Amino acid sequence: MNHEDAVTLSDIEQARRRIGEQVTTTPLLYAPRISEKAGAPVYLKCENLQRTGSFKLRGATNKIKSLLESGSSPLGVITGSSGNHGQAVAFAAKSLGLGCTVIVPENVAPVKEQAILRHGAEVIRHGKTSNERIDLAQNLARERGFIFIPPYDDPHVVAGQGTIGLEILEQLPEVQAVFVPVGGGGLISGIATAIKNRSPRTRIYGVEPELANDTYLSRRAGHIVDIGVSTTVADGLRSSHPGTFTFPIVQKYVDELVLVGDAEIHRTLLELLGEEKLLVEPSGCVSVAAATQAGTSAGGGPIVCVLSGGNVDLDLVRRWIEEDQKPGPQKEGDRT
Amino acid sequence: MNHEDAVTLSDIEQARRRIGEQVTTTPLLYAPRISEKAGAPVYLKCENLQRTGSFKLRGATNKIKSLLESGSSPLGVITGSSGNHGQAVAFAAKSLGLGCTVIVPENVAPVKEQAILRHGAEVIRHGKTSNERIDLAQNLARERGFIFIPPYDDPHVVAGQGTIGLEILEQLPEVQAVFVPVGGGGLISGIATAIKNRSPRTRIYGVEPELANDTYLSRRAGHIVDIGVSTTVADGLRSSHPGTFTFPIVQKYVDELVLVGDAEIHRTLLELLGEEKLLVEPSGCVSVAAATQAGTSAGGGPIVCVLSGGNVDLDLVRRWIEEDQKPGPQKEGDRT
Repeated sequence: MNHEDAVTLSDIEQARRRIGEQVTTTPLLYAPRISEKAGAPVYLKCENLQRTGSFKLRGATNKIKSLLESGSSPLGVITGSSGNHGQAVAFAAKSLGLGCTVIVPENVAPVKEQAILRHGAEVIRHGKTSNERIDLAQNLARERGFIFIPPYDDPHVVAGQGTIGLEILEQLPEVQAVFVPVGGGGLISGIATAIKNRSPRTRIYGVEPELANDTYLSRRAGHIVDIGVSTTVADGLRSSHPGTFTFPIVQKYVDELVLVGDAEIHRTLLELLGEEKLLVEPSGCVSVAAATQAGTSAGGGPIVCVLSGGNVDLDLVRRWIEEDQKPGPQKEGDRT
Repeated sequence: MNHEDAVTLSDIEQARRRIGEQVTTTPLLYAPRISEKAGAPVYLKCENLQRTGSFKLRGATNKIKSLLESGSSPLGVITGSSGNHGQAVAFAAKSLGLGCTVIVPENVAPVKEQAILRHGAEVIRHGKTSNERIDLAQNLARERGFIFIPPYDDPHVVAGQGTIGLEILEQLPEVQAVFVPVGGGGLISGIATAIKNRSPRTRIYGVEPELANDTYLSRRAGHIVDIGVSTTVADGLRSSHPGTFTFPIVQKYVDELVLVGDAEIHRTLLELLGEEKLLVEPSGCVSVAAATQAGTSAGGGPIVCVLSGGNVDLDLVRRWIEEDQKPGPQKEGDRT
């Protein structure tokens, strides 16, 4: 690891000025019932209410605008993602007047494909794995004179996500702990860099699903560990390993990694919907699941949970509500 | 009607100072997809994110605190409502250290009863109609030395709801039109009084379900008309007639009454959930349904839609998602 930071507070402040027009300052909402469960005031940083439905727009916009500012004049941009990053790149490209191609898996859910098409991007269905998509994206980028936009392992992407950290400190300067979902590590790297440089005593908790604990294991091992394919319901956090760019930042700034089970994630999703009236995708729920879990209370001071996104198929929501209503021995303890 | 206003701007400003501690300043969120449909920028005033899940907390808190300030020292408060007003009165009473009784119908939905019980109120199940509940509430109030808290037809309740109008003007001073759900008329009376006195050119649209068009008909007749029992899915707007206190205010300040069908309400609910990631109850969706309906566009300027609440049983949401996914001739036109 370098002595100098790979992404600095000043990079994040610059990102904020750069993306201000394209990106919404999302609200920070007090959550009374979740506060009761956590034993401390809990506030929700609502990136599910961000344009395109997730935080990914911040990093993608910062990356593309940085390219344009540096004198690059690509014919378009390309990425390989069926999820929030694909939507974000498509939206950012359109709003900046660039062409865009998004490679999605052969078996992409129609609702996800439509969301990308709606932003005017070309969609190519290809392969099944993330590696297959990224290989094709990088090949096509060379052929077409497009620029490849990485989902997380990139300084401009990380700086873009870090703008959330600046907003949190302005909205709640006295924040004592921030819980952040961890997939490839782009979101938490940016937020932790912003917050630790401005408010060093605020604790940063990274949260992973038990079924996608690659950063947790990597941290314990002291080097990047690959866990292979994950099946967690939190589909945005199914990274097999932390990024080579992001992992050293996580090592430097994140105080603790916390794991939550898929059952907790489901339950938190329904609680956020029923009690807080917010639709949050499973990946975005892990922060709240961790903050309300016994033993992770952050000392009684105000806590912020980052709700990273809200893109979830309503048919899945329907099924989860249905399953929650079935009586069963597993459920009884939950409802007391 | 008096020449002097029954509720003044100054009453509403006073209400705002009075209830500031108990009530959240709710966010005003820009809604890109709804704006596209409406042909003008649309912002959502999120009273579904208010404590207790609806705007009713504002009026109930203002009423109870006004009573206490005027030297009254009731043993408790009482109301007859199974819905948002019942929850709001229970919450306000608890936070002000007063006892509270809420009369609910015999066949109350368990989820609604639990929401009231959770705020520490006593719940009495009685009768089936609103009149039966209110009669009992008023009798018990006399017996017990409790004070009855009316749901809308009261100057302090109206002034409390009017605080939403002050917030809208601060959050979006250039607002050209505001769409507000209309049940008994308390919400729109307060908002219209605040806005017309500070920004007379901002247009105020009241919105009712076609199946509960009592204010629409009363306005056309020039006097209060009673439509009897309504079956609209927007259960918070099933008033049979506008209030005797609120109707003159509606006559004075509201520019236009607009009707929306129940199918539009269902569709808007799913759109707000899927696109804007917000859970809004059917009564709260009518404002958006009206703003996106052909012919009600308010001249291209920024529009605010008041989302009055978010209290809806998740099992109903599950059924509406299921019904929306069934293919059918009725649906085809909707999805293009």
